[in-house]
Amino acid sequence: MVEQDNKFLNQTLYIGIDGGGTKCRAILTDANGLLLGEGLGGPANPFYGVERACNSIEEASLEAVIDAGLPPSMLNKVVAGVGLAGVNLPNLHKALSDWKNPFLEMYLTTDMDIANIGAHDDMYGAAIIIGTGSVGYVNTPKTKFMLGGYGFPISDKASGAWLGLKAIEHTLLVLDRFKASSLLAEKVCDFYQINTGIELSEKLVGYASSQYAKIASLVFNCASKGDEYALEIVEEGVEYISILASRLVEGESLRLSMIGGLAKYWRPQLDSKTSAYFSDVKQQPEFGALKFAIQNWTKEDRKIA
Amino acid sequence: MVEQDNKFLNQTLYIGIDGGGTKCRAILTDANGLLLGEGLGGPANPFYGVERACNSIEEASLEAVIDAGLPPSMLNKVVAGVGLAGVNLPNLHKALSDWKNPFLEMYLTTDMDIANIGAHDDMYGAAIIIGTGSVGYVNTPKTKFMLGGYGFPISDKASGAWLGLKAIEHTLLVLDRFKASSLLAEKVCDFYQINTGIELSEKLVGYASSQYAKIASLVFNCASKGDEYALEIVEEGVEYISILASRLVEGESLRLSMIGGLAKYWRPQLDSKTSAYFSDVKQQPEFGALKFAIQNWTKEDRKIA
Repeated sequence: MVEQDNKFLNQTLYIGIDGGGTKCRAILTDANGLLLGEGLGGPANPFYGVERACNSIEEASLEAVIDAGLPPSMLNKVVAGVGLAGVNLPNLHKALSDWKNPFLEMYLTTDMDIANIGAHDDMYGAAIIIGTGSVGYVNTPKTKFMLGGYGFPISDKASGAWLGLKAIEHTLLVLDRFKASSLLAEKVCDFYQINTGIELSEKLVGYASSQYAKIASLVFNCASKGDEYALEIVEEGVEYISILASRLVEGESLRLSMIGGLAKYWRPQLDSKTSAYFSDVKQQPEFGALKFAIQNWTKEDRKIA
Repeated sequence: MVEQDNKFLNQTLYIGIDGGGTKCRAILTDANGLLLGEGLGGPANPFYGVERACNSIEEASLEAVIDAGLPPSMLNKVVAGVGLAGVNLPNLHKALSDWKNPFLEMYLTTDMDIANIGAHDDMYGAAIIIGTGSVGYVNTPKTKFMLGGYGFPISDKASGAWLGLKAIEHTLLVLDRFKASSLLAEKVCDFYQINTGIELSEKLVGYASSQYAKIASLVFNCASKGDEYALEIVEEGVEYISILASRLVEGESLRLSMIGGLAKYWRPQLDSKTSAYFSDVKQQPEFGALKFAIQNWTKEDRKIA
């Protein structure tokens, strides 16, 4: 342990943090990018509490430091890159920036930004990030913008929550005999172990988008078996992703990746023209956060020199 | 006052209570149906707190008793009929039944039931209740059921919240340039005083369905001016209401009414076949609650006799 300490005393360590809605991932490397340790923390979406997000970031970071065999006190010698939802909003950005964080320095950016950097191993590129929610993101030397991603239920088409909502809307119409029975409605009823609309609505009290996203894979599964309602939903999602992809790369020869838990479901659904837009993801978001930290820290070093 | 007291000492008084999500209405009558007083209380949707709902019911009832020039102590000589959302669910029904209420007797039923009784001045009939939410309701000697009404955003098509959600979804797609500009999107942006999708989504943080319902009339307004997106939304709502109406009365010659804040917007949109299903509302829901109280109390009297 003492040897480890000494070894790192004279070099800057970096931590990359991907703060998600259900958990927070941290990776610790040395200045050469050698992976030293990893950590997990609780939810870190500042929309649902800035203090909890900060605690989760600290928790995941401490775990990474300890995983590396280093003392917790080393945290204040670490430069952190942190990607969080919502910090493009001035209020949340300020709240997080005001945090008396435990790091030597902390650089803050959006979850979209670190996912994008990770995917391309480069600051610049475009991404469709599609899990519980969905958003399109572009970062070039000239512009930086997002499309969609305004949250459930007003936006985030083709996301897990959107797929779940569509499946549940359909199931309620089937249960009320507005629509003919379907495999999709059967699977939704099986999943929630319900027989009536009232029972289904009771299961969804509270309406967290992540609860809807739980049944997203049922839609793809039923579509693959030819269920016409599931196919309709998937078709609407594909249409949205196709327009989104073309809007993100229009007029630019940008690298575009699809990231997130639903990417593996959507990619095979796309037509060949839309598929051709996409390149594979190079690194996960926490590595994007790490790269963001290194770039900002070394840039500042240059300023000082 | 003393004279008033004496006058009512030897007869049963009735109170009809319509407990809504934003306020609670109470009307007090004598045994002959003569209106003695009216009262208003706070929110009385037990979904958002049983205690608050009970307080609102008591508040509105006390106000009606005082409005009639009677002492508050008279409340325990009053037979109450109360219509509340959600009391078709066993848990909420039990919670409300367990309430040590201030009345001589309290009869509890759903908000749908009292609206239906009021509309037809009869226990039996069908109703489409369409305001912030929407639901279809049937009560006959043989059956009693609801269609839709499972809540926002999974159900309640054609409701105010549904119209608002559709308008906002559309506006976000316009702001992201997925769709061409439209009068509806302009009006939504004007209403919320916003220019970007981020600003619009920030206005809707919390996502209460009543917030969406606030812009329902914009959709009808834009449709009347020929806006194609507004017309599409209205058309989808009309289609739903048409099927709902025919499903409610199928095979029965039931009286059907449309009740609630959006009835005045939807009625003129319907085709002549669907319009023909509908009869005008006879009385407001609080009168339905009153009738429900009188029927139950006199029925019990007969049992005792």
